[in-house]
Amino acid sequence: MCSELLEMAGTLMIGCVVLCTVGVSLADYPYKEAYVDQYVDHFNFLSYGDKTFKHRYLYQDKYWVKGAPIFFYAGNEGSIEGFWEATGFVHEIAPQFQAYVVFPEHRYYGKSLPFGNSSFSQPYLGLLTVEQAMADYAVFLTDLKQKLNATDSKVIAFGGSYGGMLAAYMRFKYPNIVDGALAASAPIFMQDPSGPHKFFFSHVTKDFRDVSEKCYDLVKLAFRQMNDLAARGQSGLDEVASKFQLCDKLTDAASYSQLLGWARNAFVMMAMLDYPYPASFMAQMPAFPVKVACQKILEASDPLKGLAAAAGVLYNTSVPCYDFKSEYIPCADPTGCGIGPDAIAWDYQACTELALPDGSNNVTDMFPVIPWNLELKKEYCQKTYGITTRNNWAGIEFLGLKISSSSNIIFSNGNLDPWQGGGISSNISDSIIAVSVIGGAHHLDLRASNPLDPPGVIQAREQEKRIISSWIKS
Amino acid sequence: MCSELLEMAGTLMIGCVVLCTVGVSLADYPYKEAYVDQYVDHFNFLSYGDKTFKHRYLYQDKYWVKGAPIFFYAGNEGSIEGFWEATGFVHEIAPQFQAYVVFPEHRYYGKSLPFGNSSFSQPYLGLLTVEQAMADYAVFLTDLKQKLNATDSKVIAFGGSYGGMLAAYMRFKYPNIVDGALAASAPIFMQDPSGPHKFFFSHVTKDFRDVSEKCYDLVKLAFRQMNDLAARGQSGLDEVASKFQLCDKLTDAASYSQLLGWARNAFVMMAMLDYPYPASFMAQMPAFPVKVACQKILEASDPLKGLAAAAGVLYNTSVPCYDFKSEYIPCADPTGCGIGPDAIAWDYQACTELALPDGSNNVTDMFPVIPWNLELKKEYCQKTYGITTRNNWAGIEFLGLKISSSSNIIFSNGNLDPWQGGGISSNISDSIIAVSVIGGAHHLDLRASNPLDPPGVIQAREQEKRIISSWIKS
Repeated sequence: MCSELLEMAGTLMIGCVVLCTVGVSLADYPYKEAYVDQYVDHFNFLSYGDKTFKHRYLYQDKYWVKGAPIFFYAGNEGSIEGFWEATGFVHEIAPQFQAYVVFPEHRYYGKSLPFGNSSFSQPYLGLLTVEQAMADYAVFLTDLKQKLNATDSKVIAFGGSYGGMLAAYMRFKYPNIVDGALAASAPIFMQDPSGPHKFFFSHVTKDFRDVSEKCYDLVKLAFRQMNDLAARGQSGLDEVASKFQLCDKLTDAASYSQLLGWARNAFVMMAMLDYPYPASFMAQMPAFPVKVACQKILEASDPLKGLAAAAGVLYNTSVPCYDFKSEYIPCADPTGCGIGPDAIAWDYQACTELALPDGSNNVTDMFPVIPWNLELKKEYCQKTYGITTRNNWAGIEFLGLKISSSSNIIFSNGNLDPWQGGGISSNISDSIIAVSVIGGAHHLDLRASNPLDPPGVIQAREQEKRIISSWIKS
Repeated sequence: MCSELLEMAGTLMIGCVVLCTVGVSLADYPYKEAYVDQYVDHFNFLSYGDKTFKHRYLYQDKYWVKGAPIFFYAGNEGSIEGFWEATGFVHEIAPQFQAYVVFPEHRYYGKSLPFGNSSFSQPYLGLLTVEQAMADYAVFLTDLKQKLNATDSKVIAFGGSYGGMLAAYMRFKYPNIVDGALAASAPIFMQDPSGPHKFFFSHVTKDFRDVSEKCYDLVKLAFRQMNDLAARGQSGLDEVASKFQLCDKLTDAASYSQLLGWARNAFVMMAMLDYPYPASFMAQMPAFPVKVACQKILEASDPLKGLAAAAGVLYNTSVPCYDFKSEYIPCADPTGCGIGPDAIAWDYQACTELALPDGSNNVTDMFPVIPWNLELKKEYCQKTYGITTRNNWAGIEFLGLKISSSSNIIFSNGNLDPWQGGGISSNISDSIIAVSVIGGAHHLDLRASNPLDPPGVIQAREQEKRIISSWIKS
């Protein structure tokens, strides 16, 4: 909580020392909030007729001069304020481009709920699709340009993770509206059925192993010990629960599986959010959480207790026990869906249009065997939503591996980011450029600059700025 | 009927002389017919779940060798056999390209009805959209390539009129699937709200005026005389009905309006289908129907009788009177929707996603004042389907006027074709090429070669072949 408050105040905490980070104060990047009416269904004119919903967006127009570009962030799976705050790069460069900055929210997340609190029940959930969200953005940007009398302004799309996919997809599908896109940490090749799906947990593992071989050994050992104990029956389960300081007893295979998922999820989040300073994006994290976790593992008196302490880097440790059943909800995404209404929306998207990594296997990764693949996902999605996941729709609709006919897209990926393997690692053409962020976790390049930034992200941002500038001038 | 039979037998009738036209016999281009299962809704995974329909396609695989391209015709608003027969160009060039030829049908037309005979009622009509039809084609082609073990084969899209729009749109939106497109007579710029909408009836007028200034004068005079007579009340209406040899009396303003629309429609069809030989595409037409009509007008004893005789070039003259109420149904498309279920589907598409020309005004054209514009269309569509036509959706979704980021598209237009003004008349880039077909009516270049072809279409087809060849080799 302390680090969140500090981060929100635009400061940086290392241990107990508070360092002011000049130029990155979020107070410098205030937003205005507004809503537009948006059709609930862009692709069927009879289903809901003229029914609209209130579509939220955040914006900042104080840098903007007429003729200058529009910087548009393609909102992804969460409240839009979180992305505004985590995308300092856009705010930092907006003044020099005299850009209008606008962050529309993704439908079914945050406050942009097409059917209010009923949005997450059937049949309303059916209008949660990538295409509908993109249509929201296309209509929104067209109307905005007209309202600003800026029909000739260039529009540059930005996005991280799924938002990065959306930024690229907007350039793929609406090049009349989006002139260029910075797609940060966007695993778009994973969306093709023949694309990569096995990279994720091995990359998380590598992140920990790169910090300490011993840390990696101990994590692997701990998960093995857990399995051995669980195999012993109730007494073993009790010992696991005790060493983990769980609030609830482990009573059966299901609760033990839940614990495994909960524990693995902590490592996923630490690897993704392995920033060189404390951050509050997606979760509260100290600087270099992978290093912090390994430290705890190495210092622990016992591998299992080490694992529990490492999980505590993510989960709330201010309470006396881990509420492992509510802190992690298994879903269609083996890398986690989060908690609350946003998690339902993401789970549904994972069941319908988004391809995701396979599970962990204890061979190419240090985690327990938790299988996940298209067949298991189909079973889950049928049971949960009564729908049959379509095998190759995303690969067809969003260009799959054949993206070379598009143009003006930067695909950036950090070498620490476990999502890197699903993205694009080399240039596709003169104007579809891969940028490697050495020392970067999940879309670090989109974050505000920071004195603790590794040189790799400083170079990446400079390159991105130069390319964006060339698009605007062309 | 005689000319239809002759045309279908691959022969050509001029007057009473039957000429064999070597190489263009439709018997040379037989097709095989098949069906695939297609999801009724590609954009909502809950609305109809896994429900599929039988999607029809025609194909010819006898020229094909592995590795060679797939020639795909983007079926448009009618039964697919009609397009197979009217697109001889594709069949003629397929052997030299060793191409697989495939014509999938547009959903809601012909035999591809997602909900059988209920397809045209609400809410089922809601799944008739350009996007759904394109998704059908994208899924169909992906599956076909897999089935043929031809994932590396180039796919070239062909289409005429709305089919030409679809061919271009497939390249715009699915460049991963379509490598190049020949979009013949495709009025895509008309789809943008700020694009051209006033060209159509003035071009029809020009076609007749270019044949004979006197013909033009007489048509204009005839419509004026009709109006004068109608203004006199029942006796005037009776005189009009008698001169036209109508089956039904003209009883009121509505029936008189119907007659005006019916008469104008004949001129529309003659201008569109002004081919240099008899043809049975869309309607039975003699060679050079515009010339034939003008001849009748010039020979008539009276302008009104001349107009009636000219209308007879389109409408069935084997019966003793004109059934003007059933031969033409006014709809959301001022250039006509045809008759039967296909006409309902087209009317609905005109109400939802397709922009169309404005009405006639008697100033820039020779026709009576029959107003039509977005406001009137909205009123009609609200009344007919209970929907509000959205102003700029097609312009947003299908790139509007900003198409230069796409590539590998030929836009061909005939100078006789009244749709020419809604299309693209000059090159957009090195690979978005405008081809002018001198002497060509509506997508004449797509038709089989014919000894009576004007040199302009022979040259256009040669240019098209060269460009298509370069796409396949690249």
